[in-house]
Amino acid sequence: MDSLPSSDLLSRFAAIVGEDNVITDEKEMAPRLSENRGLYHGRAAMVVKPASTQEVSQILALASETGTPVVPQTGNTGLVGGQTPSEDGKSIILSLERMNRIRDIDPLGNTMVVDGGCILADIQKAAEDVGRLFPLSLGSEGSCRIAGNLSTNAGGTAVLAYGNTRQLCLGLEVVLPTGEIWDGLRRLKKDNTGYDLRDLFIGAEGTLGVITGAVLKLFPRPAGHQVAFAGVPSPQAALQLFEKASNLCGTALTGFELMPRIGIDFTTRHIPGVRDPLASPHPWYVLIDISTNDSAATAETMVHQVLEQGLEAGLVEDAVIAASVAQAKAIWHMRESMSDAQKPEGGSIKHDVSVPVARIPEFMAQAETAVLAAMPGARICAFGHLGDGNIHYNISQPVGADKAAFLARWREINAIVHAIVLEKGGSISAEHGIGQLKRDELASIRPAIEIDLMRRIKRSFDPAGIMNPGKVINV
Amino acid sequence: MDSLPSSDLLSRFAAIVGEDNVITDEKEMAPRLSENRGLYHGRAAMVVKPASTQEVSQILALASETGTPVVPQTGNTGLVGGQTPSEDGKSIILSLERMNRIRDIDPLGNTMVVDGGCILADIQKAAEDVGRLFPLSLGSEGSCRIAGNLSTNAGGTAVLAYGNTRQLCLGLEVVLPTGEIWDGLRRLKKDNTGYDLRDLFIGAEGTLGVITGAVLKLFPRPAGHQVAFAGVPSPQAALQLFEKASNLCGTALTGFELMPRIGIDFTTRHIPGVRDPLASPHPWYVLIDISTNDSAATAETMVHQVLEQGLEAGLVEDAVIAASVAQAKAIWHMRESMSDAQKPEGGSIKHDVSVPVARIPEFMAQAETAVLAAMPGARICAFGHLGDGNIHYNISQPVGADKAAFLARWREINAIVHAIVLEKGGSISAEHGIGQLKRDELASIRPAIEIDLMRRIKRSFDPAGIMNPGKVINV
Repeated sequence: MDSLPSSDLLSRFAAIVGEDNVITDEKEMAPRLSENRGLYHGRAAMVVKPASTQEVSQILALASETGTPVVPQTGNTGLVGGQTPSEDGKSIILSLERMNRIRDIDPLGNTMVVDGGCILADIQKAAEDVGRLFPLSLGSEGSCRIAGNLSTNAGGTAVLAYGNTRQLCLGLEVVLPTGEIWDGLRRLKKDNTGYDLRDLFIGAEGTLGVITGAVLKLFPRPAGHQVAFAGVPSPQAALQLFEKASNLCGTALTGFELMPRIGIDFTTRHIPGVRDPLASPHPWYVLIDISTNDSAATAETMVHQVLEQGLEAGLVEDAVIAASVAQAKAIWHMRESMSDAQKPEGGSIKHDVSVPVARIPEFMAQAETAVLAAMPGARICAFGHLGDGNIHYNISQPVGADKAAFLARWREINAIVHAIVLEKGGSISAEHGIGQLKRDELASIRPAIEIDLMRRIKRSFDPAGIMNPGKVINV
Repeated sequence: MDSLPSSDLLSRFAAIVGEDNVITDEKEMAPRLSENRGLYHGRAAMVVKPASTQEVSQILALASETGTPVVPQTGNTGLVGGQTPSEDGKSIILSLERMNRIRDIDPLGNTMVVDGGCILADIQKAAEDVGRLFPLSLGSEGSCRIAGNLSTNAGGTAVLAYGNTRQLCLGLEVVLPTGEIWDGLRRLKKDNTGYDLRDLFIGAEGTLGVITGAVLKLFPRPAGHQVAFAGVPSPQAALQLFEKASNLCGTALTGFELMPRIGIDFTTRHIPGVRDPLASPHPWYVLIDISTNDSAATAETMVHQVLEQGLEAGLVEDAVIAASVAQAKAIWHMRESMSDAQKPEGGSIKHDVSVPVARIPEFMAQAETAVLAAMPGARICAFGHLGDGNIHYNISQPVGADKAAFLARWREINAIVHAIVLEKGGSISAEHGIGQLKRDELASIRPAIEIDLMRRIKRSFDPAGIMNPGKVINV
């Protein structure tokens, strides 16, 4: 489409969902035109809020027919600009917020069928209400929605034991760019019947279709749960402690998070109610989360064993075990506030990288040297899911630096860190996806054939090129 | 290609791998032209055995250029005719048997990089040698090769805890039909960088490219392992026992297999060394496999708890716990021989189906009624992975029936069983794939849009239509 959508066309979109379920006022649209980090701002002709899969289908059919770009949006919590429209104002935003029904929950079969617009926390709660666990857990769970989690294959804090969102999904319902509906809402653990379309839509960031429904896996609620917080001398020590914990706990090790001292400083300084659980400071910290199925006693034994072995081996300097659910939550809250706690410290240049787990210490050391050489005084607040090899390598601006000048070096610093990541066989986007932020970088670091295959898929699924254009790959 | 490959063309293929590494003699090719069940026989112009990814690349480039159909073959243990060439004799068989090198093994990072032609048992052994577990385990593990396991997303006996082959693979190296090589040999747990090409090649049954290498996940070897064998009154009781075991053991429940009395009769009658571990007969049996990471004692406690609770609730009639590794192996051997043990009983019509776990008892009851109504005297030997909802619903011919006449009713009986499977929301191919056997049936039971999407992928990856034509879908 070369021009803005006509008012006639917008009326046709509005007729599908009803006038009350569209927004055209720029001010009212504003919260949906920017994202949390403030990196991307776009414009849109309309926000349209369908109530059903059928309405989504009609919207996409009309969009394909008229060449109208469609940007699917759920909780608008994505971190790579994948949900933000471009600045030309030609797009419509398709919001799934009204499709927030839990369609069915089967505790015996350990499955739940949900609308794409269900909020993650509501899904967790619905599972809990029938005595089950939906393990996906991340900082934005109170506002992110499951179709967004699926479209970005969200990670979060329970990946170690339960996998990414991909591993938590059995089936999908997707509306294709043409408006056709694919009903792939299967509830089967095993189903080898042709190409894996489900896993193609998962992680496609809304560029191949709109996920309107999903079958999710549920799990037994653990009988035992322990959370420990330990001061450790170095990332190397943290890695060795992780290996011990893995060997001792196996799949009962449900979280193993690494945090730097500066992250504890930032959270205790800026996040209300956060206190350092340990008496004196340590260079690095780990959060150890253990969940057991057989009994509470097993988790207790395990957490003590891990810490004792760590202390004996000199890997742990000091540690505390949460004595209550509230204390466990407080420790997790500290970890999950680590990104927000950087905001009052000025600009922050972010990386969401992964490397093979065993290479984390060398990555951390080399990245620190390189970043500080390029930008003396930069404050590196690198934390994350050590057990998954996934580090949020965030860099706060030097004290007193100019924020805009600092942020202007985002790409330059990314290039320095990513070069080290790639040299270790790592990924430049472990769990946040590609969106707009890393689209061109992806094309530059991957073999041409890989980008070409993605392009072939995109073209064959979305011949009119209307689905979330400009995200993931340029066609 | 309308005619048979010319001798000139065959010479060009031979030149890529060397004359010693091709077979053109029909007799010598014979073992590769049929499959185990004797359902499919094909012809081929040549078997070509490359030694490297580069040679595979040259073969496929030449095949694409000349329109020569290529049938990839590994252990030739597939059960749906996916590895058998068509009868026109125009194809060449590309065998990966010479590409059987373990390229790298990293016990610390829990990964292994292998050639596509590695035999599964060799991979298991290599993992064991460094104190790790590669959990994929199936009856044909002594001869099947990993590229075939990946291409069919093989299931096996450890899916309950570890997932299908898909879940055990981190990265792939694939030669595309054009000869281009995609190096996706990543070792990362988390990597959200664009469309999931890996999972598209996994399960594609060699129709989108040839898997020449893979990064596999390794796991700690369990500290405790227990195997129990229990007589139970019904599939319903088995399901209830499974629920108890799941709740008690969580992910420590590594296998839960269902077997009928007739399967015990067949194995004790026909498989040397197999004995019924229980004193008197029972209508149904379950094999319970428990593996624990923390200690041997935990597994022992768990297996006793499961059986005690089962006995108390009337779900278990009698049970035995393997007292040694040899006894555990003997119980598993009985289960894994159940398919072979049907051969001396005459013809057998097979189904590899799955339904949501909770619906297994109703499926079993309805299928039995329907099959016996259609074919009085049929001997139903339905066994399999109850915990995954996956039943090998095999039917041995009535005693004294004519084998050929019985087997002629394969499609008719399939239709009866599959109708019930589909009504339960199940799958007509849980773990064996589609191949030739279920290609047309798949197209008839799935929404047109699903088959169409698969076709678009196939066409965009294999424009010359040379890769394993006629398998999975017709283009």
